[in-house]
Amino acid sequence: MTRRFDEKKFSMAHLRAVAEEVSNWGRWGPADEMGTLNFVQAQQILDAGRMVRQGKAFSLGLNFDRHGPQRGLWGNRFNPIHTMLATGTDAVSGAQDAGGLRYADDMVSLPLQCGTQWDALGHIFFDDKMWNGYDAKLVDSNGAQRNGIEKVKHKMFGRGVLLDIARHLGVASLQDGEAITNDDLDAAAKAQKVEIRRGDFVIVRTGHMERCLAAGEWGGYAGGAAPGLAFETCRWIHRREIAAICTDTWGCEVRPNETDDCTQPWHWVVIPKMGLTMGEIFYLKDLAEDCARDGVYEFLFTAPPLPITHAVGSPINPMAVK
Amino acid sequence: MTRRFDEKKFSMAHLRAVAEEVSNWGRWGPADEMGTLNFVQAQQILDAGRMVRQGKAFSLGLNFDRHGPQRGLWGNRFNPIHTMLATGTDAVSGAQDAGGLRYADDMVSLPLQCGTQWDALGHIFFDDKMWNGYDAKLVDSNGAQRNGIEKVKHKMFGRGVLLDIARHLGVASLQDGEAITNDDLDAAAKAQKVEIRRGDFVIVRTGHMERCLAAGEWGGYAGGAAPGLAFETCRWIHRREIAAICTDTWGCEVRPNETDDCTQPWHWVVIPKMGLTMGEIFYLKDLAEDCARDGVYEFLFTAPPLPITHAVGSPINPMAVK
Amino acid sequence: MTRRFDEKKFSMAHLRAVAEEVSNWGRWGPADEMGTLNFVQAQQILDAGRMVRQGKAFSLGLNFDRHGPQRGLWGNRFNPIHTMLATGTDAVSGAQDAGGLRYADDMVSLPLQCGTQWDALGHIFFDDKMWNGYDAKLVDSNGAQRNGIEKVKHKMFGRGVLLDIARHLGVASLQDGEAITNDDLDAAAKAQKVEIRRGDFVIVRTGHMERCLAAGEWGGYAGGAAPGLAFETCRWIHRREIAAICTDTWGCEVRPNETDDCTQPWHWVVIPKMGLTMGEIFYLKDLAEDCARDGVYEFLFTAPPLPITHAVGSPINPMAVK
Amino acid sequence: MTRRFDEKKFSMAHLRAVAEEVSNWGRWGPADEMGTLNFVQAQQILDAGRMVRQGKAFSLGLNFDRHGPQRGLWGNRFNPIHTMLATGTDAVSGAQDAGGLRYADDMVSLPLQCGTQWDALGHIFFDDKMWNGYDAKLVDSNGAQRNGIEKVKHKMFGRGVLLDIARHLGVASLQDGEAITNDDLDAAAKAQKVEIRRGDFVIVRTGHMERCLAAGEWGGYAGGAAPGLAFETCRWIHRREIAAICTDTWGCEVRPNETDDCTQPWHWVVIPKMGLTMGEIFYLKDLAEDCARDGVYEFLFTAPPLPITHAVGSPINPMAVK
Repeated sequence: MTRRFDEKKFSMAHLRAVAEEVSNWGRWGPADEMGTLNFVQAQQILDAGRMVRQGKAFSLGLNFDRHGPQRGLWGNRFNPIHTMLATGTDAVSGAQDAGGLRYADDMVSLPLQCGTQWDALGHIFFDDKMWNGYDAKLVDSNGAQRNGIEKVKHKMFGRGVLLDIARHLGVASLQDGEAITNDDLDAAAKAQKVEIRRGDFVIVRTGHMERCLAAGEWGGYAGGAAPGLAFETCRWIHRREIAAICTDTWGCEVRPNETDDCTQPWHWVVIPKMGLTMGEIFYLKDLAEDCARDGVYEFLFTAPPLPITHAVGSPINPMAVK
Repeated sequence: MTRRFDEKKFSMAHLRAVAEEVSNWGRWGPADEMGTLNFVQAQQILDAGRMVRQGKAFSLGLNFDRHGPQRGLWGNRFNPIHTMLATGTDAVSGAQDAGGLRYADDMVSLPLQCGTQWDALGHIFFDDKMWNGYDAKLVDSNGAQRNGIEKVKHKMFGRGVLLDIARHLGVASLQDGEAITNDDLDAAAKAQKVEIRRGDFVIVRTGHMERCLAAGEWGGYAGGAAPGLAFETCRWIHRREIAAICTDTWGCEVRPNETDDCTQPWHWVVIPKMGLTMGEIFYLKDLAEDCARDGVYEFLFTAPPLPITHAVGSPINPMAVK
Repeated sequence: MTRRFDEKKFSMAHLRAVAEEVSNWGRWGPADEMGTLNFVQAQQILDAGRMVRQGKAFSLGLNFDRHGPQRGLWGNRFNPIHTMLATGTDAVSGAQDAGGLRYADDMVSLPLQCGTQWDALGHIFFDDKMWNGYDAKLVDSNGAQRNGIEKVKHKMFGRGVLLDIARHLGVASLQDGEAITNDDLDAAAKAQKVEIRRGDFVIVRTGHMERCLAAGEWGGYAGGAAPGLAFETCRWIHRREIAAICTDTWGCEVRPNETDDCTQPWHWVVIPKMGLTMGEIFYLKDLAEDCARDGVYEFLFTAPPLPITHAVGSPINPMAVK
Repeated sequence: MTRRFDEKKFSMAHLRAVAEEVSNWGRWGPADEMGTLNFVQAQQILDAGRMVRQGKAFSLGLNFDRHGPQRGLWGNRFNPIHTMLATGTDAVSGAQDAGGLRYADDMVSLPLQCGTQWDALGHIFFDDKMWNGYDAKLVDSNGAQRNGIEKVKHKMFGRGVLLDIARHLGVASLQDGEAITNDDLDAAAKAQKVEIRRGDFVIVRTGHMERCLAAGEWGGYAGGAAPGLAFETCRWIHRREIAAICTDTWGCEVRPNETDDCTQPWHWVVIPKMGLTMGEIFYLKDLAEDCARDGVYEFLFTAPPLPITHAVGSPINPMAVK
């Protein structure tokens, strides 16, 4: 297993020190519930518009259905259950004709983070707190009274940049357990001749999802071992002042994790302390192939969340437009 | 009740004649499942990008929660049920600490057309057929084998135009039963100094939703009487070759309907015969106020659907960006 | 509003004193999770069998569907949502024939206490504790680690007694806010010539549900004002050592409550302190009419809960057999 | 694979001939929706009461949770999803104190036939018809307008008999594909010294579920190969005039099936033509061990279905009482 960085497991003391270092608590006032999405301002929106130069649109959303990646490895998540409330077979049988309209209708039940998704800032806690110092107890069975996804429903629009780490390293997919370092991010950006700017939506491709799709089975994709961002990248992200980070993996960060003292150490730091919005389970194949073809790794990016009141995540269908 | 058009109820013979007149079956080949979204091509995407001139973004999505508009008047639709799979109160109680991560997680169950939404082309049938002549029986309990919303997951991006009919007529809201005619659409566009182009996403404001929000109760919003598009507008839409039409009402067309011989006559025609994509329950207050302020009624519009496999609709959070 | 008992509101001090008086904590050992259902032993089961003397069976379950009593007045409860996974219209369309079997299949989503139901002992807390002194925090998003309904899945079988208070008082239904006192319970039993025994399932009829069914609307049935048991009945119940109590109301106890200092004071005491199992929303019309006719108010009673692991309630279809 | 009967695959002509032979259409009038449950009359109920001789009660219900037998092999069924609407961790956090009551509440979403269950008479069709000749199209997305489970909500009570085939044959479990013949049923009854009577609820034990529970994994239990009733048993059942048949398997009948021309041939015949009620996924270990111990294979049996309006099945918690 190639990890390409300091293999020593780090301690909670290190995690806590870095957490303070990259904390943005109070940076946008005590009432803020948007975190790093605050980096998206009028200028960033204007820049996004300018990215549309060829008239090409890509969906980065995996279809939502019973064949999704959830396999019961983590939490109580399950794949989407789509059921019909009315059908064409009903219609043709004449059962609807008294109502004067032949139609189909449907519903879905799904964990908000079962597929392509945003984590809301209320998703992860640091000790007893969430983003900006709010009490974690404000997320009870009635949902997140603070830091819910509906608070950022107008913010998921800006300039997107793809960092195709797999292609940069010359592999179809990074291996499980293989970490992406700050140097990797910089080297990929340089090789791709793309600049990372304040307020960007940075999308990192590991090839993990495509490996599973090619194999025809998800295996440990959702909650098992995976390639992903090294813990140190929280510093890179903080320094760059990006709006959000997204990957084609289940949980952005490398697994097994780089410490034995907690689970998902990078999550501990970037969501509740830095206030970073995070996108996961992105489908990047078509976009990445196009970028490799035309050499353009920047685009207009948008992924409006469903504004489910007090939710700590949202399924999404992100779009990249060139 | 002001209707401002020929009050005579029309016959099914008229409906069927108009349906043939505006039919697009076969226009994009026998395998097409996108209908009028085919009008969005590279040029339309480029035009959309050029609409971003000020750096302002608006969400047109109503929040999804138990306070939504569904009141059991039509079909089996209900308001969204958002429940938690893990909470901050659990986290603080220490119950999660064995897992090394404190987090909240959640799920939702919702009819796909309970709130701000796209109708998919498989939603409405004409006799035994759906869009492009596909057999309605292809929509069974396993969903829409043809014309599902996932087929257009990359297409909901283009130039948007708001036609603020309520403001144009000088009212806070049109009345229930009041119809919007072709002349109304043209007059509003002219007064707003905005041009309707091929491939546009045209958004029509009646004020209906704002009336309900101001009153603090939905009443008959979902399935009762409503202002909306006159049946004749299907011809206007067909002639303009727009990509989609969206309104701030439950069902786009005027209710009570203009015929007693069927329900939702305009739906009968525009979805299965014309192949028109339709958006409903749009929240337009903020956007409309901004357009009135700056006089700019065109914008980049995007509303990526959740690609729920074989679904006949999708909840969305549309965005307008200027 | 007739209340027929001391109208003075009582204090939390009184509630707490009575709670200690009727507490059964430790009575069946420190590991008990069944409470007063422990009163059902072999003798009680044998007695139940002897109640079957005429060969008549009654269902006491209200049908579960969208027309149930939930109207959003209390908690996040909603009426059952029953949807199909396969239909006869699909079957007849031929869509299933490749599988060699024509069938229908279905699912339901429902709050466990939305209709005729048992409360589990984990449903109500007293301060930070639940039945038998278990920590309330043992009920988290993963359910009730103690006092779940599945722990009593073999216990809902015994002798049932109907106390038809409405008929005894000569009314179709008690009024909302009208309380049933210990004297009422004794007087009704005496008039009905029925004895209350240790381990009985006592079923109290107020007429409330029948009033709503006759009116064709539920109104405040679920969570509003209601007739019901006076707080003092917790002492009567404790003394009688019954297994469970059930009513035709939403919440057994009288509403408005007899104190302003908390909500559902009787619940505070009988579930977490006494360990009483409680049944609600029972449909009693047919049984009550039969009892009035034949003068027999005792019967075999059974209402097996669905053993949903770690659940704090269960929908049921109780049966009374004479 | 031991099958112990004529191994020749039978034809659809044979199936159709037997279907006519055992048909009960019209036997209880043209409006009947209860089928063989009509065999339960006052005498059968009285007999059931007499079975209670020792004061022992057994639950035959498997717990309903995420660890249930559904593995996606058949249909769209999934395991129960139990989620909380309020928790003890919320309560202890103080979040509920404004409401004056500390409580937990919950909900479940489940296919009605995902665990221990009744099939309703509307579950299986024969050509275009269901039980008693009703049109299969009467089961549409709004549920079963005829033959719904709610029609028999008062009928699931009678004399039960266990036929412990596995024990009779001296094995822990029959093998997958091993069929139970009419001779097996008779021989087991004779060896157990128990008589099968009109209106009985006959429960057949194969050991299949216990084999899975012992192995700690369900494997193909739900929809794969299984031991079970031979097709010929439909004649035995018809002759005996029993009320219902139940097994500890997923689908009662032997799998692989005895014909290649359709799936579940015994289902084709016994549900829509004979009108037989069927129970599946029964947990029989405790009851069977007790019967082996005391030699008593008859008991009071009850398994009230949830009266979900228009449902084609119901989860249940059956009870056997001796």
